[in-house]
Amino acid sequence: MVGFITPKVLKGFRDFLPAEEIRRRSLVEELETVFRSFGFLPIDSPALEYTEILLGKGGGETEKQMYRFNDNGGRDVSLRFDLTVPFARFVAEHQAELCFPFKRYHIAKVWRGENTQKGRYREFTQCDFDTIGVDSAGADFEILLMIKNALLSCGVGNISISVNHRGLFNRFLKKINADEKLVEILRAVDKISKIGNSEVFNILSASVGSDKAQAVLDFISFKGDWDSTLRMMQDAAGGANPDSERLTRIYEFIKDSGSEGVFQIDPSITRGLDYYTGIVFETFLNELPSIGSVCSGGRYDNLLALYSKNSLSGVGASVGLDRLIAALETLGKNGGQKTYSLCAIACVDEALCGKYQVFAEKLRSAGIPCEVFDEAKKLSAQFILAEKRAVPWVIIPSTEEAGSFTLRNIGTRTNLDKLSLEDIIRTIGNTLIKN
Amino acid sequence: MVGFITPKVLKGFRDFLPAEEIRRRSLVEELETVFRSFGFLPIDSPALEYTEILLGKGGGETEKQMYRFNDNGGRDVSLRFDLTVPFARFVAEHQAELCFPFKRYHIAKVWRGENTQKGRYREFTQCDFDTIGVDSAGADFEILLMIKNALLSCGVGNISISVNHRGLFNRFLKKINADEKLVEILRAVDKISKIGNSEVFNILSASVGSDKAQAVLDFISFKGDWDSTLRMMQDAAGGANPDSERLTRIYEFIKDSGSEGVFQIDPSITRGLDYYTGIVFETFLNELPSIGSVCSGGRYDNLLALYSKNSLSGVGASVGLDRLIAALETLGKNGGQKTYSLCAIACVDEALCGKYQVFAEKLRSAGIPCEVFDEAKKLSAQFILAEKRAVPWVIIPSTEEAGSFTLRNIGTRTNLDKLSLEDIIRTIGNTLIKN
Repeated sequence: MVGFITPKVLKGFRDFLPAEEIRRRSLVEELETVFRSFGFLPIDSPALEYTEILLGKGGGETEKQMYRFNDNGGRDVSLRFDLTVPFARFVAEHQAELCFPFKRYHIAKVWRGENTQKGRYREFTQCDFDTIGVDSAGADFEILLMIKNALLSCGVGNISISVNHRGLFNRFLKKINADEKLVEILRAVDKISKIGNSEVFNILSASVGSDKAQAVLDFISFKGDWDSTLRMMQDAAGGANPDSERLTRIYEFIKDSGSEGVFQIDPSITRGLDYYTGIVFETFLNELPSIGSVCSGGRYDNLLALYSKNSLSGVGASVGLDRLIAALETLGKNGGQKTYSLCAIACVDEALCGKYQVFAEKLRSAGIPCEVFDEAKKLSAQFILAEKRAVPWVIIPSTEEAGSFTLRNIGTRTNLDKLSLEDIIRTIGNTLIKN
Repeated sequence: MVGFITPKVLKGFRDFLPAEEIRRRSLVEELETVFRSFGFLPIDSPALEYTEILLGKGGGETEKQMYRFNDNGGRDVSLRFDLTVPFARFVAEHQAELCFPFKRYHIAKVWRGENTQKGRYREFTQCDFDTIGVDSAGADFEILLMIKNALLSCGVGNISISVNHRGLFNRFLKKINADEKLVEILRAVDKISKIGNSEVFNILSASVGSDKAQAVLDFISFKGDWDSTLRMMQDAAGGANPDSERLTRIYEFIKDSGSEGVFQIDPSITRGLDYYTGIVFETFLNELPSIGSVCSGGRYDNLLALYSKNSLSGVGASVGLDRLIAALETLGKNGGQKTYSLCAIACVDEALCGKYQVFAEKLRSAGIPCEVFDEAKKLSAQFILAEKRAVPWVIIPSTEEAGSFTLRNIGTRTNLDKLSLEDIIRTIGNTLIKN
């Protein structure tokens, strides 16, 4: 061999060291606990799919970003770039095996060959959850409530969930005869927080003329409480209709659950995609609104459009785990957990490692994760090792009296002598209850 | 659009429907709980790496099976085919940030474009765990004990872990002057359970002659208890040496922990790879030995060989999750859990879905996962839905008396009337404690 290989990861890809991975897992576990508590079920699907499936009608930006290649069998395949398209394929393929309404969550990696700006990665994790096969205010509200619970369980502090209804927006555009330019208008409106009102006005004017542009801007800039905003939107759409009734009912549910403080109505939330047809929403952290929405989604009426004539309505959302973690870090809420171990058995004699494991097993059985140090270094060196590993307690077996131990508190640098293993389990167990 | 796309996954790839995914997750969670209880920490690394990194010195079979392509930036990249090579790269890259001995686990998907025979997939999950940076009997034994605990926690029933020492085998080969053919001999010996003694003898004879072939066969076929087997191997290797001492000490630890019933010494276990240098082991299910080893591994002394002159010793193993699941299914131990929900709130009036969510939240806060049905179908239809979804209890809010509920046991088809939510939490909670 000529030389050594330089160990490095691809640009836009990341290793996760233990502290980071513990953090990621704890957030995923929090999210999963909430999803499960609502009766949502996990699924999984392949990382690699036929390109035809992933591209769908698409193309454009998506196509350029895909990791696409021919496999050894000559198939045109790609790594998934989101969890939505594979989910549609999954449902179309397994329709007969699923029980509707079908409520699922899927937490998995996706890949996009994007330009790697700050906070943009080519491999990242999405957490998607959807209810499909039912079109009701109850299902809409359930997703909203689950977002609230899921994010609060991650410890992000206060959140605001901004809600709107795309059907109502479409009705308004129709009313002012601007609905033919729907896609262009949506794209412009979706940029309002980035580029500001006047720039959006310019784009809209070029597309539909200044009168209609002004009407759209008035509509989306309206600020009011639920009741007045709903009334304005309803009037602008030509009167009461099923979409305004849906939004009215969702607001009743919000009031029933006492969550008026979390949910706002916001006519400027339309989401860029023409995929959505019902409610749409975005979630902001009140302590860090600048990071943008950490959980967005809405209702769509055509999940299976690419695969069959059957239409299947659904409502769902996606949490951007990487953005959430970045936000928590900025807020100084990064958890800081470095290990799962609560204690370590010090190694006094390497010939006794079998016995040390027996001691450790007693602690593990009592629900106390316990490491065993397997090198008989000086005790002071083992205490330093425990400190480095963030292990709070070290248990030192007595060399004189079998069944007797010293318990070292690494934080306070104090010892408790002549304890039994049962004493130690009680002592460490008590600190768990206090925390 | 001309027609619809046929929804299908690639050959060798799989979707996981909820019941399957719940099963997979419950096993992964069992494994993780054990890994964490030993102080092992999670890491993660990219699915995609530079091909140069993954290929290393390799080539051959591995290279043919890799999903390899040029990314949009013209880089030669591949999907990882195992977690071992990326781990070596990870450690080489982050050496300065890690705390040694470093104990990590990594549970993730890998990809191999293999021929898809029965039970072989092109995308599958590996669960790897290793201790690196220490070469001791204590670390060897800890991995063995962790395998035992991890597999027992998965409910596979009785297991046998067969242990050997590759160093001892190498010494024996050197003693009989057959060590130059090490790689060929290892490959032949590794096939013994598949092709039988006489076929292995033929292969060995062709390589080292019939006398040495017979000596190798005698060595690996020896059947005895730990003491007699160790003595035979030690004699065949030319007397006591550090490797036989290591194995002797590990056996002492096994006895200390009272696990003699689980661990056997087996001179025929050598593992095919010339990568291993110390102990090697394979794990069999006593109720289904024919499925082969469900967890194998060993000690290696050269994790960083490709990246630097530094040598770093480690010991580790890998659980084949897919094989484990297949085995559990064959044994009729497939869990059978179809949902996380314990109850559902029946929908009597769709206008009350907000209130139903408030009821559900009380149950969820008490640790009882609770769905809300959001279509006001006939109660009998909602009971059928609950049965289909494997939800054991349905809670029917009274239409007459606020705060009063009927609790339907779906299994027994019996009702408890006029309960408060607190009564219901107690009743469902009690069944949890009993189980």
